[in-house]
Amino acid sequence: MRISVIQFNPLIGHVESNAQRIIAQSTACRDRGFDLVVFPELALCGYPPLDLLESENLVTNCLQWASHIAQQTSGIDIIFGMPLKNPESFGKSLLNGACRTADGQVQQYWAKTLLPDYDVFDEGRYFAPAPPNFNQLCSLGGVRIAVSICEDIWYESLNHLYQRDPLDDGLYAQADWILNISASPFQMGKESLRHTVLSAVSRRLNKPLLYVNTCGAQAELIFDGGSACYDLNGNKIASLPCFEANEAELTWSSGTWLAGVGWLSREEEDAAADVTGGSFSDIGSSDQVQCRDTRFQAQDAGDSEHELGQLRSALVLGIRDFFSKQHLTKAVVGLSGGIDSALVTVLATEALGSDRVTAILLPSPYSSAHSVEDSLELAGRLGVQCIQIPIHDAFSAHKESLEQAFGRPLGDLTEQNLQSRIRCAMLMAAANEWGAVLLNTSNKSEMSVGYGTLYGDTSGALSVLGDLFKTRVYRLARYINRSHGLIPDHIIEKAPSAELKPGQTDSDDLPPYAMLDAILELYVEKGKDPEYLIDLGFDAHWVNRIIRMVDACEFKRFQSPPVLRVTEKAYGRGRVMPLVGKYVH
Amino acid sequence: MRISVIQFNPLIGHVESNAQRIIAQSTACRDRGFDLVVFPELALCGYPPLDLLESENLVTNCLQWASHIAQQTSGIDIIFGMPLKNPESFGKSLLNGACRTADGQVQQYWAKTLLPDYDVFDEGRYFAPAPPNFNQLCSLGGVRIAVSICEDIWYESLNHLYQRDPLDDGLYAQADWILNISASPFQMGKESLRHTVLSAVSRRLNKPLLYVNTCGAQAELIFDGGSACYDLNGNKIASLPCFEANEAELTWSSGTWLAGVGWLSREEEDAAADVTGGSFSDIGSSDQVQCRDTRFQAQDAGDSEHELGQLRSALVLGIRDFFSKQHLTKAVVGLSGGIDSALVTVLATEALGSDRVTAILLPSPYSSAHSVEDSLELAGRLGVQCIQIPIHDAFSAHKESLEQAFGRPLGDLTEQNLQSRIRCAMLMAAANEWGAVLLNTSNKSEMSVGYGTLYGDTSGALSVLGDLFKTRVYRLARYINRSHGLIPDHIIEKAPSAELKPGQTDSDDLPPYAMLDAILELYVEKGKDPEYLIDLGFDAHWVNRIIRMVDACEFKRFQSPPVLRVTEKAYGRGRVMPLVGKYVH
Repeated sequence: MRISVIQFNPLIGHVESNAQRIIAQSTACRDRGFDLVVFPELALCGYPPLDLLESENLVTNCLQWASHIAQQTSGIDIIFGMPLKNPESFGKSLLNGACRTADGQVQQYWAKTLLPDYDVFDEGRYFAPAPPNFNQLCSLGGVRIAVSICEDIWYESLNHLYQRDPLDDGLYAQADWILNISASPFQMGKESLRHTVLSAVSRRLNKPLLYVNTCGAQAELIFDGGSACYDLNGNKIASLPCFEANEAELTWSSGTWLAGVGWLSREEEDAAADVTGGSFSDIGSSDQVQCRDTRFQAQDAGDSEHELGQLRSALVLGIRDFFSKQHLTKAVVGLSGGIDSALVTVLATEALGSDRVTAILLPSPYSSAHSVEDSLELAGRLGVQCIQIPIHDAFSAHKESLEQAFGRPLGDLTEQNLQSRIRCAMLMAAANEWGAVLLNTSNKSEMSVGYGTLYGDTSGALSVLGDLFKTRVYRLARYINRSHGLIPDHIIEKAPSAELKPGQTDSDDLPPYAMLDAILELYVEKGKDPEYLIDLGFDAHWVNRIIRMVDACEFKRFQSPPVLRVTEKAYGRGRVMPLVGKYVH
Repeated sequence: MRISVIQFNPLIGHVESNAQRIIAQSTACRDRGFDLVVFPELALCGYPPLDLLESENLVTNCLQWASHIAQQTSGIDIIFGMPLKNPESFGKSLLNGACRTADGQVQQYWAKTLLPDYDVFDEGRYFAPAPPNFNQLCSLGGVRIAVSICEDIWYESLNHLYQRDPLDDGLYAQADWILNISASPFQMGKESLRHTVLSAVSRRLNKPLLYVNTCGAQAELIFDGGSACYDLNGNKIASLPCFEANEAELTWSSGTWLAGVGWLSREEEDAAADVTGGSFSDIGSSDQVQCRDTRFQAQDAGDSEHELGQLRSALVLGIRDFFSKQHLTKAVVGLSGGIDSALVTVLATEALGSDRVTAILLPSPYSSAHSVEDSLELAGRLGVQCIQIPIHDAFSAHKESLEQAFGRPLGDLTEQNLQSRIRCAMLMAAANEWGAVLLNTSNKSEMSVGYGTLYGDTSGALSVLGDLFKTRVYRLARYINRSHGLIPDHIIEKAPSAELKPGQTDSDDLPPYAMLDAILELYVEKGKDPEYLIDLGFDAHWVNRIIRMVDACEFKRFQSPPVLRVTEKAYGRGRVMPLVGKYVH
């Protein structure tokens, strides 16, 4: 049996275009002699469709297009994910389903049993679990396939989050192999977690397994693909390259997989995934983590070269799809001379091309000369257009009008925020003028503690680095420089500063980033309580102060741009905190 | 049995302060000879606690404070909502529970069975349903009470959204009366819906019913209270005034309710709830709804005086609690001369007092003289401080710097947005300078079609009118003027204009508000597809154009402030749309 595995990149809500691409790719496979084409979870409507599912039209549309796909693709079997109507008389009205078409008709439906309802997932909002006996074996030319959807194979790894394990269903024991179609987003460390789960499932069921994942970005969520096939002992036979929407040939023969063109063998993958770690505290020896306990350092000793490469690919894909799927053509970045905006400009240029990125320098009375020089140097190396819009005059005009109205000089904080907001107005004017889109340059450390001005530097259509702590921003910048040397050394080496008053550096207002990020990672990403951090050896004063800062700026994050998600807990829809109230830990 | 019903207004996350208030109110009731005090759903941690529930500390804290409440309140029974740990070995780790304390100890726990997972509700994210046989009758001095939590009595009204009706449980048949503790938010029309449900439940079970609802606002959600008691035939005996966190005495005697001090009798309530409707299209005869079908007009023929009074109370409570719960003292409103900012200033003054509101006029070269005059007149009538900060100079300075950088004059749209963003920077500077908070003045019609400038007039800490279409803004302003005459007639009567270029009015860019709002209400609030609207008789060109506008500005709404929710579908967490993709209806 010759199978074509498609790491599909759907356009959410545009059923017609997704269907047309399914038809085109499937008929091409049929003409090349394939027996089966497999697309990922909800390929027909895109994942996550969110409240578009509340439009009755969407599901009706999907059902009509599924029939149309069947009619247009006689001669080959296709399996693809799509929403279905729940046949039961109670519960949510939809199922997160899949169908098989063949011989001009829809032949079979399946539905997901375990519906994730945590972090960025809210499938319980829309879907009912598969009704009893809804899922049956798929029999294809004598080969019996058990079809599962994403979360359905994650029961054991999720610590009894669900009542029953769908893999206990007798149909899995009767299958020749297991198919899992997914829409599983990327995050740092997900690759090895996913391998652990897939390996354990194939070993436990003692069945070969084919995993087909979505590839492509949908605003915050970046789907990395990484489709793979496993033997019945849990060994990975081959996998598809991540972050590329591609297709590859797989043959099922004599009870085993033969990976064709497009696959990476296990050996090739291992060679790519060098596991050499960096150092956690690589932004200066004075920034050692103030923690007596070695557990934390051991746990996050930095990202490996492979992980940093994945991170870069994820962010580039995130930017590229955000633009291409919305038919946006041009990006604007405010280049401050600091590392965050430098890295965003590098990533945007890689994603969109240098002709579609414009860097804007917005010097103020407090900008250092080197900030302008460094920025011009970076823009030159990248080959992006670079213009300067000084904010002196606008700042003076605002200041005068305000001071006249208030009858007194502006306060220090007011002046700092004002500069940031004037820059936002200038950047947005440039974006308006050119039909471009502003990229946000805030990092996760700043977003966490509220070190940013609402309607100022927190603005932008997409936050590229909002899920990277500052220490990781440095690691990624150094990683990119090791191969390309794009970012002037001075941008990386100098002390971080907002340059909103004379001689200001971030360390005037914030603790050292190495300590800040270590505490933030445990509190925000791992969900640990302050007692746990203090017990680990972190200084209680800093722990409590930092956590108070995080809790106090929910109102800023509420109005933040969408953040490209690269960790297990990003700001945005995966972390929903009350705005009003008092958090007592 | 003497019962004290408490329409509690909790502070989310501050378990200690909620517990101390439960203790204080309960001991006062005990000292006055009461037998039982009842608090609403999740009174101990506040509703909705959202991802605070992911902190293990929160539940541990609640369990400790429940014991402490019991110890401090010997001599009286107390029932209050709180999160519990799920005793089952699978599923979500928490229950949405309640407990009864008496004689120094926690005596009994209950848990919610039906967990709403739609609109603004996401209880499936956190809670497991009540385990089998977890809920038992409460026996108090020989009186048997069946305790239910909010959604548990809504099964029949929700069209089989859930598999089983908890009211089919035998314990309801054995009870003398039914208790329902709720955290059920206000929306237009909710009062009569709630009455229908409560009446049907008591009638069907043939049992008297006591409904105890939360009162108070939690950012977007406004809980209106409206606690009530019903006899076994579904007749409402009495209810508590809405929008006031108050307590009232109820006696259970000889199988029936005796309502004491604090209750409104059915007759008093009916007198208050005059049902005279206004006219849908009351902003000018040229704005008649372009719809041949009478169904729509019949359905929304305007809001009654009673409904407008509720709306006003809801918004005032929403503003007041947003400020008081965050210890915010001062509000800033940008007064444009238009009806939206006028109404926000009136409501803010009612909520906070005239000494805590400052109106700021930000005239531009395109502002009309009457806009300034009307604004000064309004501020004078309200007695609020009013200052002027002209934006001419800042606008010229921005424009010059930008035109020099671009080498050409700014485009029309860029100039309009720039004025709006300069106003935002000025307003935020004033807020920074005074430790105040900016109130947003956008209405739902503008938010729907993207008629607003991101980081300009879409900014603010709280959107007061973001869930009121423009026609409803007019109705509410006229309602307030009928009793108080606060808003100068000219503000209400003149043609709406953004005043961002000479002679501009909203009708240059937008369809008439009566038609716009009718289409938006069906599409956004009722979730109807375009075919349905066209079938109703709306012009297909306008339907498609307006829906395209709504779909195209998800990116603006993504970064909007929290919106006070007053309808069944407000922008915010209750409406989650993909940012990237193409909606094909």
